[in-house]
Amino acid sequence: RINSDRLWDSIMEMAKIGPGIAGGNNRQTVTDEDGEGRHLFKRWCDAAGLEMGVDEMGTMFARREGTEPDLPPVYVGSHLDTQPTGGKYDGVLGVLGGLEVVRSLNDLGIKTKHPIVVTNWTNEEGARFAPAMMASGVFAGVLDQADVYSHVDKDGKKFGEELERIGWKGSEKVGDRKIHAFFELHIEQGPILEDEGIDIGVVTHGQGLKWLQVTLTGKEAHTGSTPMPKRRNAGLGMARVIELVHEIAMDYQPDAVGAVGHMEVYPNSRNIIAGRTVFTIDIRSPEKEVLDAMDVRIREGIDTICDALDIKYKIEQVGHFDPVTFDPGCVKAIRDAAERLGYSHRNIVSGAGHDACWINRVAPTAMVMCPCVDGLSHNEAEEISKEWAAAGADVLFHAVVETAEI
Amino acid sequence: RINSDRLWDSIMEMAKIGPGIAGGNNRQTVTDEDGEGRHLFKRWCDAAGLEMGVDEMGTMFARREGTEPDLPPVYVGSHLDTQPTGGKYDGVLGVLGGLEVVRSLNDLGIKTKHPIVVTNWTNEEGARFAPAMMASGVFAGVLDQADVYSHVDKDGKKFGEELERIGWKGSEKVGDRKIHAFFELHIEQGPILEDEGIDIGVVTHGQGLKWLQVTLTGKEAHTGSTPMPKRRNAGLGMARVIELVHEIAMDYQPDAVGAVGHMEVYPNSRNIIAGRTVFTIDIRSPEKEVLDAMDVRIREGIDTICDALDIKYKIEQVGHFDPVTFDPGCVKAIRDAAERLGYSHRNIVSGAGHDACWINRVAPTAMVMCPCVDGLSHNEAEEISKEWAAAGADVLFHAVVETAEI
Ligand SMILES: NC(=O)NCCC(=O)O
Ligand SMILES: NC(=O)NCCC(=O)O
Repeated sequence: RINSDRLWDSIMEMAKIGPGIAGGNNRQTVTDEDGEGRHLFKRWCDAAGLEMGVDEMGTMFARREGTEPDLPPVYVGSHLDTQPTGGKYDGVLGVLGGLEVVRSLNDLGIKTKHPIVVTNWTNEEGARFAPAMMASGVFAGVLDQADVYSHVDKDGKKFGEELERIGWKGSEKVGDRKIHAFFELHIEQGPILEDEGIDIGVVTHGQGLKWLQVTLTGKEAHTGSTPMPKRRNAGLGMARVIELVHEIAMDYQPDAVGAVGHMEVYPNSRNIIAGRTVFTIDIRSPEKEVLDAMDVRIREGIDTICDALDIKYKIEQVGHFDPVTFDPGCVKAIRDAAERLGYSHRNIVSGAGHDACWINRVAPTAMVMCPCVDGLSHNEAEEISKEWAAAGADVLFHAVVETAEI
Repeated sequence: RINSDRLWDSIMEMAKIGPGIAGGNNRQTVTDEDGEGRHLFKRWCDAAGLEMGVDEMGTMFARREGTEPDLPPVYVGSHLDTQPTGGKYDGVLGVLGGLEVVRSLNDLGIKTKHPIVVTNWTNEEGARFAPAMMASGVFAGVLDQADVYSHVDKDGKKFGEELERIGWKGSEKVGDRKIHAFFELHIEQGPILEDEGIDIGVVTHGQGLKWLQVTLTGKEAHTGSTPMPKRRNAGLGMARVIELVHEIAMDYQPDAVGAVGHMEVYPNSRNIIAGRTVFTIDIRSPEKEVLDAMDVRIREGIDTICDALDIKYKIEQVGHFDPVTFDPGCVKAIRDAAERLGYSHRNIVSGAGHDACWINRVAPTAMVMCPCVDGLSHNEAEEISKEWAAAGADVLFHAVVETAEI
C-alpha cells in the first residue's frame, strides 16, 4: 500500500501555489503559478531520484529507471494546471498519485523491469487556451504543435510564447516516446461513486466532446431609441442558442450533456444592443452517433435563430474528441488491483475529457477514478477524502507495478 | 443663422480626441480622453469670452454675460462623454451647438438680457458608471452625490476618485444654480425624422426607463461530468431572462422597448457551468403604466425561471426615470423657431434619456432633434449630415435668443 499521509501532504503543499479565492486553486496553464507548481514537482522528483525530461509542449516526464532500461516505460500521471476557479485534486491527484507510486517503490526497494515515468501533461484544462488536453493531443498526433502554439488567451497572449516565458518549453520532440502503457488516476467529477458508496471506478470508456465556438454579428444600436422590429440583437441570438443547446441535451440525456459556459458580449454596455457575441458550446456523449446528431441539430438551430433575428453567424470547432474505449488489458489490470486490495468497484464512463483519452490512441491506456463530494468539480469547493485518495493511489500502484513487472 | 462650417469643424476637431476603432469615438466619462475633451472645450469657451464654472460633479458651465446679469441664465448644452463604441455626434452636437449659439451672438454683436450658459453635463452615457445622466440627476436632486461618487466601473474604480484624478472635480456645489430655461439639441437616435424626410423634431415627451441589474447565483460545475438534472446553470437562467425581456417588450411595442446589453459570466470558462451571472435589463416606455407593468412581469418571470432552475436571484434598480413631459413654453419656442426658419418639423418623443429629462424637473426645459442616418446611434457608424446639424443649431439659436431676450 502507498503512504497516504505523504500523498495527502503533497497535495496540500501543491495547493498552496496559485490559491483561489474560496479554498481552491487558480493555477492556470503556463502562468507564473503553473511555473512555480512545476518547480515544486521537479524538486520532489529529484529527491525521489527520477530523471526529468521536458518536451517542446512543456510536458514533464520524470523517469525511474527499470532493470531492463531498453523496455518501453509504463507512464503514470495527469496534469497540474487548474481551472480559474478549480479544485485542489482535479489532475493533481493523478500526478502526485504517480509520484507516490515511485516513492513507495523506493521505500520498499522494489525494482521494476520497465522504467516508470511520472508525467505532468501541459494544459489539460483548456480554460486559458482551447482546446483541453492540448499537450497530450499533440503527443498523440491529433493536434498540430505549430497551430496550438498560436492559440491566444483572452488577453491575446500566445500559448507558445507564454510557455517559453515561464521557462518550461523543453527541447524534446513531442510524441517521440515509446509507451508500454499509460495509467491515469483522477477524481470522478460526477456523483455516481459517492452516491453508490463505491471506492473505485474502473473507467472503461470516455465521453466524446465537441466545442463549437460561435460568433454572432448583429448591429450595435441604442436600446432606447431603436424600434423593436429594427433590432439585430446578437445578445438575444446568444440567449436563444443557449436555450437550444440545453433543449437538445435534455432530449438525449442521460446519454448526453450540453451547456455554454464561455460568453463574450460586445460592446457590453447597458444601453447598447449587442452588436457581436462570441461563445462556446460544449456538447458531450458516450455515443458518437448522439454527438453527431446533436451537432447537426445545433447547426440547423443556429441557422434558424439567426435567420429570424437577421444576424450573421460563424461556427468554429475549437475542440473535439470521439468517445473512447480504453484498453481491455489495462482496464483489467485496474479491476484486478481493486479486487485484490478489497476495494468495492464498478465500471464507469468518464464524463470529462482526460489526457488518457488521447494517449489511448497511441498506447494501451486506462484510468482509475475515486469519488468526489457531491460530484462537484471545476469549482473551488471540490473535495475528496484522504481515504478515497489513498484507495485510488493503491489501485494505481498495483496496476502500474503489475504492468511494469517486477 | 449660425455658422455651419465652424460648427462642423468643431465637431470633427472634438472627434479626434478618444478615437474609436471604426471611425467613431471612445471617450468615456472621467477617463483621460474625457479630460482632454474638456480642455479643448474650455479653450474654445475662453476664446469666445465665456467664464467657466465647474461643479463638484465636474459639470462645466460656460457663461456669456447678459445685459441684466441678475436675471437667471438660459442654459444650453448636452454632454461630451461617449459610449465605448460611440458616435461623433451623440451629445457633442448639443454642447458644440450651444457653443455655436454664443459664437454666432458674438459675431453678430447681439447682447441678451439673460446670461447664456453653455453646459457640458458629466457622465450622460452611463456606460462606464451607472446610471446614465448622472450629473444632471444630482443637479436635479434625484440622485445622491455621495452615493454616485461611490459607484464603480468594471475595474472597481470609483466615479468620485476618477473625477478627481482627471482634475475636473470643481468646487461649486451641485444644483445651486438658478435656471431660467434649458435647451438641448441632440440627434434623434431613432429613424423617424430621416424616414419622413423631416428637418426638425420638436421633442414634446421623453420615454421613461428602468435599469434592473440582475445577479443569478447557481453552482459552478463541470460541463462534462455533471448530469443534466443536477445542474444549477446561471448562464441558462440569464438566457431565459433575456428572452423574457424581449417577449414582454414585443407584447407592448411600439409603446415599449426592452433588451439586455450588459452581461458578465463567472467564471466564464468553456467547461464550467456558469455559477454566477450579472446583467442589466433596460426597459423603456413613454407610458408610466406600461413601464410599471413590464417591471412587474419581469420580476414575476425571473422568479419563475429561477425556481425552475434552482438558482437564486437578486434584482437591483440601478437606473430609473419616469416618462417626461417637456415645458410647453420651451417646446413652443422651438416649434416657432423651426416655423420661422422654414424648416419642416414634427412633434416627437425621445426614445433615449437625456440630461434635459432631469433638468425639466427643476426648470422649464425642451429639446430639439435632428435626424441621424438609419436611426443608428451608440455605434461608431453613427452619422448625420452637416445640413441636419446646421438646421438643429439654427433652431436652437433662435429658441435660446428668444428666451434670453434681446
Ligand atoms: N478532467 C477535466 O476536467 N478535463 C478538462 C477537459 C474537459 O472539459 O473535460
Ligand atoms: N442619449 C443617450 O443615448 N443617453 C444615454 C442614456 C440612455 O440610455 O438613454
